[in-house]
Amino acid sequence: MPDNAQQFASDNYSGICPEAWQAMAEANQGHQRAYGDDEWTARAADHFRRLFETDCDVFFAFNGTAANSLALASLCQSYHSVICSETAHVETDECGAPEFFSNGSKLLTTRTEHGKLTPASIREIALKRKDIHFPKPRVVTLTQATEVGTVYRPEEIQAISQTCDELGLNLHMDGARFSNACAFLGCTPAELTWKAGVDVLCFGGTKNGMAVGEAILFFNRDLAEDFDYRCKQAGQLASKMRYLSAPWVGILQEDAWLRYANHANHCAQLLAKLVEDVPGVSLMFPVEANGVFLQMSEPAIAALTARGWRFYTFIGAGGARFMCSWDTEEARVRQLAADIREVMAA
Amino acid sequence: MPDNAQQFASDNYSGICPEAWQAMAEANQGHQRAYGDDEWTARAADHFRRLFETDCDVFFAFNGTAANSLALASLCQSYHSVICSETAHVETDECGAPEFFSNGSKLLTTRTEHGKLTPASIREIALKRKDIHFPKPRVVTLTQATEVGTVYRPEEIQAISQTCDELGLNLHMDGARFSNACAFLGCTPAELTWKAGVDVLCFGGTKNGMAVGEAILFFNRDLAEDFDYRCKQAGQLASKMRYLSAPWVGILQEDAWLRYANHANHCAQLLAKLVEDVPGVSLMFPVEANGVFLQMSEPAIAALTARGWRFYTFIGAGGARFMCSWDTEEARVRQLAADIREVMAA
Amino acid sequence: MPDNAQQFASDNYSGICPEAWQAMAEANQGHQRAYGDDEWTARAADHFRRLFETDCDVFFAFNGTAANSLALASLCQSYHSVICSETAHVETDECGAPEFFSNGSKLLTTRTEHGKLTPASIREIALKRKDIHFPKPRVVTLTQATEVGTVYRPEEIQAISQTCDELGLNLHMDGARFSNACAFLGCTPAELTWKAGVDVLCFGGTKNGMAVGEAILFFNRDLAEDFDYRCKQAGQLASKMRYLSAPWVGILQEDAWLRYANHANHCAQLLAKLVEDVPGVSLMFPVEANGVFLQMSEPAIAALTARGWRFYTFIGAGGARFMCSWDTEEARVRQLAADIREVMAA
Amino acid sequence: MPDNAQQFASDNYSGICPEAWQAMAEANQGHQRAYGDDEWTARAADHFRRLFETDCDVFFAFNGTAANSLALASLCQSYHSVICSETAHVETDECGAPEFFSNGSKLLTTRTEHGKLTPASIREIALKRKDIHFPKPRVVTLTQATEVGTVYRPEEIQAISQTCDELGLNLHMDGARFSNACAFLGCTPAELTWKAGVDVLCFGGTKNGMAVGEAILFFNRDLAEDFDYRCKQAGQLASKMRYLSAPWVGILQEDAWLRYANHANHCAQLLAKLVEDVPGVSLMFPVEANGVFLQMSEPAIAALTARGWRFYTFIGAGGARFMCSWDTEEARVRQLAADIREVMAA
Repeated sequence: MPDNAQQFASDNYSGICPEAWQAMAEANQGHQRAYGDDEWTARAADHFRRLFETDCDVFFAFNGTAANSLALASLCQSYHSVICSETAHVETDECGAPEFFSNGSKLLTTRTEHGKLTPASIREIALKRKDIHFPKPRVVTLTQATEVGTVYRPEEIQAISQTCDELGLNLHMDGARFSNACAFLGCTPAELTWKAGVDVLCFGGTKNGMAVGEAILFFNRDLAEDFDYRCKQAGQLASKMRYLSAPWVGILQEDAWLRYANHANHCAQLLAKLVEDVPGVSLMFPVEANGVFLQMSEPAIAALTARGWRFYTFIGAGGARFMCSWDTEEARVRQLAADIREVMAA
Repeated sequence: MPDNAQQFASDNYSGICPEAWQAMAEANQGHQRAYGDDEWTARAADHFRRLFETDCDVFFAFNGTAANSLALASLCQSYHSVICSETAHVETDECGAPEFFSNGSKLLTTRTEHGKLTPASIREIALKRKDIHFPKPRVVTLTQATEVGTVYRPEEIQAISQTCDELGLNLHMDGARFSNACAFLGCTPAELTWKAGVDVLCFGGTKNGMAVGEAILFFNRDLAEDFDYRCKQAGQLASKMRYLSAPWVGILQEDAWLRYANHANHCAQLLAKLVEDVPGVSLMFPVEANGVFLQMSEPAIAALTARGWRFYTFIGAGGARFMCSWDTEEARVRQLAADIREVMAA
Repeated sequence: MPDNAQQFASDNYSGICPEAWQAMAEANQGHQRAYGDDEWTARAADHFRRLFETDCDVFFAFNGTAANSLALASLCQSYHSVICSETAHVETDECGAPEFFSNGSKLLTTRTEHGKLTPASIREIALKRKDIHFPKPRVVTLTQATEVGTVYRPEEIQAISQTCDELGLNLHMDGARFSNACAFLGCTPAELTWKAGVDVLCFGGTKNGMAVGEAILFFNRDLAEDFDYRCKQAGQLASKMRYLSAPWVGILQEDAWLRYANHANHCAQLLAKLVEDVPGVSLMFPVEANGVFLQMSEPAIAALTARGWRFYTFIGAGGARFMCSWDTEEARVRQLAADIREVMAA
Repeated sequence: MPDNAQQFASDNYSGICPEAWQAMAEANQGHQRAYGDDEWTARAADHFRRLFETDCDVFFAFNGTAANSLALASLCQSYHSVICSETAHVETDECGAPEFFSNGSKLLTTRTEHGKLTPASIREIALKRKDIHFPKPRVVTLTQATEVGTVYRPEEIQAISQTCDELGLNLHMDGARFSNACAFLGCTPAELTWKAGVDVLCFGGTKNGMAVGEAILFFNRDLAEDFDYRCKQAGQLASKMRYLSAPWVGILQEDAWLRYANHANHCAQLLAKLVEDVPGVSLMFPVEANGVFLQMSEPAIAALTARGWRFYTFIGAGGARFMCSWDTEEARVRQLAADIREVMAA
């Protein structure tokens, strides 16, 4: 039973957007070559190159866990380490997938403010150990937008990239919500990636209206050597690839990806605005992407849940996360805000 | 450009069947819980349990490479080995995926007649080495139907299972074309699996009318311990799982899976029958599932290709594989047979 | 150039003790069967069973990194996690070896007091996450004696073991300095291991007078299934095994292992006592095994180094670690203490 | 009980030669820095560079399984493959270690004549598959001397190296019995390695009079990047490294390594000569290194065993392998030959 009250639980709870669906329907005609040798895959890759204004290497994977882990594995060896925020999805929610795909690379986490790494925090952790008894830092991974709904500015990414260059580190970006970051900043995808020094981006499709599928874009093409073999071996090469690539054509060709990201961001801003004057409610993090993190009372959270609302509360006592997605309804946002006001007043 | 002439290249070239599509469309309503906690996934699992007449553990993976590799990895450790036919897909076409997912398990291949392992061939390879300098045999994997279009009979599977019991081996079945085997034999899925001693089956959806997705069924449920963690870590847990599970509901609920398998098998039989009296053409293997392997002259193969037909020729000089699928058109079969007759007569 | 001033740098800097050397010399006669099928290996295993008063399974590995990593890998799968102290050697000084050997198991670290885990700290970390998006806790590893020179009492181990039983966790002990723990407590090896619920012990030989080699003892013998294959595949099976096992016979047969541990502990106690009244010097941790951790002034540390003394200072600003070993000379201890007194007075 | 009758079972059954022992005794003085920062390790590395007349990178591992597997892993990724002889030790006797250390690289074996790969056999296997569904060939590994006692000539290695260059393959040499090859050919180590195009050599110490230890020499130093981390993570970094490196100083400094290899080879030639006219006995392979492979009758083999002789018979029905080593006694060779003559006459 689909449930409107689940609209704020996760952007993973949303369905397939019309543009992606339509493209799948079009792709579902007759026979097509398998394993990516089809026209849709070629078109999707071209769309990415156009959108990013560069001749990058494009690959497709089934989900973000695999896309990020494969990308990280291509940037380091098992005895290297990956620097990330302590809130990074690769650290907290992928069940050790980066360690598995890389055969043992260690994630080195660092405390962050608002979920964002800084040159200083990277430098501190990268220089802490320089002996062979500890995995050698080799990669930095940023999440854009972060897990707490904040967004790296281009100049922040540039500064991190410069630090990476100094320290001999590759720079990876987990872009599960990359579209939300682009929408918030009004930047081009290029400005937030290769122009700022990012080597590899995992661009999320699932959270942005697709059924399944992420794109992996190597701007540093040397790092993409034999990456097609890596995907195949790791069980990430779809035989009927057109069903992974066609939806990308659907959401890229007329900028649905950006329109939906704008919509989700707008809903998040709306929710934040509607509750900003509710006594006892405060924002835990700036609202920049499609998530709103509210500090509330625990009874209020319980009361909201009792009213049927679904949302995550993993952020600590009294913390509640409300995620907006491509199909979030403004009416529901207003209803949620009203309910928050009521339960806090109780 | 979809191409009818590609209809015999691979069952992977086919599209999504109407029943799978319709179920996806129905599933694409509003928000649903992610990662398999949705109603469609529960329904699909129930359908499998009903179909197999047993309370098996059911998991879903994106493709056959992953499904088989994860299943094998759950049946052995890195220092164990897996006995398979030299033509098995896990050996020849998965780019070392079983070795990757298991962190090094060795595949031990054996020559087979018509692609089928026998108790004798298994025993020979399992007993060849019994010292710690060689990986200890721990699993046998059968492909049902085989890569050369033949089908194991229930009593053949039982005999292999008995050998496995004697030797302390687990029994896995790669069922990428399991439905074609069921259709050919007129056996129930149960008769070809757990009733015959199979521990784990990977049931193929992709080659049978789905966009993406395989089901992994553990009949020996002890072996499924923490398999959900294994899938997650290996990048095989879909967040929007409903799009992997709903198509299964679509093709299982009114037996479309079997109807389509019967159709594909029928087309293969038809092709074989239509060319059986063509001088110079002979069957390389008995036609039991949906593939027809013909020995032809090399010029004839070239001539067929020149006429636009697409098919694989990896089986050796003069060998041609024609695969039928859920949507193969009888008219195209007849046209292909006529063309084969002509090019052989030239 | 051997250097007496290095005597406090590490117990790894020490040489081979006479008993180990003598046994190697005796073993170096003529030809012997390889890979552990020799008489010395059988004798060493028997000595361990006698010493531990139980019929445990005994294996030999080249070093502690491998012994611990192989043991941990045998206790969990790649999607499981290992709970350890944040100061544990497996976390801080093995370059990701546990992750490598296990193909990705994550180490979950916890703050500890005096380097020791407690039932409460284990329970907290084991229960923090119970979803498939995070590696499932499966093993607890204790270091006995700890990296900061403290020692778990039998009742502490029992309490931890009970917690492990409640939570479904296996219990591993890194015993690189197990002999020092036995010597300090006056307990039998059995009391500190299987009688207290330890499943597997890695008993260190290298730090206790051997050239190379650790023993892995499975008290829970079910967990040792095919562990010989695991060692072989991981490059830890010595062909001329007698040179790894004979030294164990040498140090076990007349209790040299315990005598030397007592000596090293005694030297540590002596050093601590000799500096206890030095103004500005304080113990960072109780002295229980063979290490003395002193909080001093940074100039004093520099002055000590200038006088030629070698020791580690990885513990933080002003922290100095002085390790005693089987061959530490009391005269050198007194000289070091005198120098510490002088540099602190400067 | 040491057993002279075991002298022909394996060169692994032999003990430590006097030069290696003496160097260990000298190294066993006082304290030394750990993990290879000691004087003996520096000296050993220098000896290798002098012996090979080039500034190669030198690493030490505990045994051949690890040395070969680590070297191969550094030359390819998990989705690559390694071309080797079907009789290669990495394929037949290392329990899947290469697959484990590389996280899944597949070994592609080829039939060989007298155990030796050729440019043609390499080319055939390297070009057989060029699609991403099969691991991409990336390394060739030669065994010098081979498992059947034959030796690659410099020009054979050069021709293979040239083929490797054409095909984009790295060239690895398993030199467990490299010294026997040098002795047989009268070539310099340089002529048989980097001058002939070898990228990496694993030089065996264990079979040539050491207790434990192999050296890994990277002539192509780019390939050695971070190899020290790789060794550490894989449990192959000795803390008391001097006991692995000093024996190398012992056997290298006055050419004991070559003297012993000559002696072992001489004994093999002697045995072959003494039985060449025995009716019913024939050589299975040319005797070039330290092994003699005889085709005999099975009753004769049983009779030899009954007389107490120990040797391997893994080569097929009626095949017997007699290995000579650094300490084989000529008198025993003559006695063995006489017994062979007698049992064959019976």
